[in-house]
Amino acid sequence: MEESVKDLMQKLTDCITACNHCFDQCLQEDDVKHMTECIRTDRECADICTIALSFLTREGSLKADLLQLCAITCQACGDECEKHSHDHCQECAKACFACAEACRTHPLIA
Amino acid sequence: MEESVKDLMQKLTDCITACNHCFDQCLQEDDVKHMTECIRTDRECADICTIALSFLTREGSLKADLLQLCAITCQACGDECEKHSHDHCQECAKACFACAEACRTHPLIA
Amino acid sequence: MEESVKDLMQKLTDCITACNHCFDQCLQEDDVKHMTECIRTDRECADICTIALSFLTREGSLKADLLQLCAITCQACGDECEKHSHDHCQECAKACFACAEACRTHPLIA
Amino acid sequence: MEESVKDLMQKLTDCITACNHCFDQCLQEDDVKHMTECIRTDRECADICTIALSFLTREGSLKADLLQLCAITCQACGDECEKHSHDHCQECAKACFACAEACRTHPLIA
Repeated sequence: MEESVKDLMQKLTDCITACNHCFDQCLQEDDVKHMTECIRTDRECADICTIALSFLTREGSLKADLLQLCAITCQACGDECEKHSHDHCQECAKACFACAEACRTHPLIA
Repeated sequence: MEESVKDLMQKLTDCITACNHCFDQCLQEDDVKHMTECIRTDRECADICTIALSFLTREGSLKADLLQLCAITCQACGDECEKHSHDHCQECAKACFACAEACRTHPLIA
Repeated sequence: MEESVKDLMQKLTDCITACNHCFDQCLQEDDVKHMTECIRTDRECADICTIALSFLTREGSLKADLLQLCAITCQACGDECEKHSHDHCQECAKACFACAEACRTHPLIA
Repeated sequence: MEESVKDLMQKLTDCITACNHCFDQCLQEDDVKHMTECIRTDRECADICTIALSFLTREGSLKADLLQLCAITCQACGDECEKHSHDHCQECAKACFACAEACRTHPLIA
């Protein structure tokens, strides 16, 4: 497998892990009332990254479209997570932004 | 397609719809703090029903296992939703129990 | 649920069913060598329709993007299936085109 | 994240990659007629590994059940791939058996 695909798969896996962790931790926060949009985008982002991961290692013409969608989703989730000071939110924002960047700049899109 | 598969697909689709609706509505409730386990199981149940749906129309030997897993998941989600008086929770519980029953009694398992 | 969403969910479910049936039947054809692209797009189309189905009943801003992607995928799969005279291919083409049209003309996109 | 989860995630990702590669390569083989069961199980195995991956990083009580199902699926896919001498089949069998073993022996099950 090409290095650029391998790297992107790692970023996607890291992002899925961070989003799912953030989702579960947000649900346990005292201020869960302020975390609802974060919970929603965490789920959404984990799902889209999972789909992107599964298409990345297949033949087909949808990869660029899926990476574009994944970049948008990760950016939106990162923007939301970034607003909150919880460690899991800050770490999730970092993973989301790294994944969005990796999608946007991947040879499959550019 | 056999009638029993068609019927199960409808129950699965209804359950996905009800769980996703309950997920989004729970996040908007004033008492979201009491809804966190409901939110978590709604997501889980929608995901497993989606997988079951996608395997139900394929050849393969995993169908019985997936329906069994789906029955457990729907039952657990219904049990949680049933505790809450919100309309979306009560409706979700109903859809979950109907789907659990349809999985458990389907010829593919029995 | 709105009538237009209900209708689209039915089209998506019909398309998943037809694609998975066509996938399995193509693998059993004597001329499987000519069906390889059909097999590949059947899988792809069933997967994207499943994702679209799962996002259609949730809140969020990705629906239009996913329906657009789904329309492209269904159209491509239908175009491929249409080339083959097997009943399952012709029926799959019909389900794909109906689903592509339902995605393209859905209020969520337009 | 625990080391054992990290390791399992890598095995699952490797297995998804190998199965999708084997799927695409089998479709291009001259003897595709002999590869049809391999194509079917490759798809199945990639799908179940993807689901397992997505549940592995979440809270919830379904992990053991999903790993058990994943172990069965990987074993079956590896058994099929092992029969064929193509490099991609042999490599896929190796990835499947490694993943099946990692699922079966994971602390979440045992």
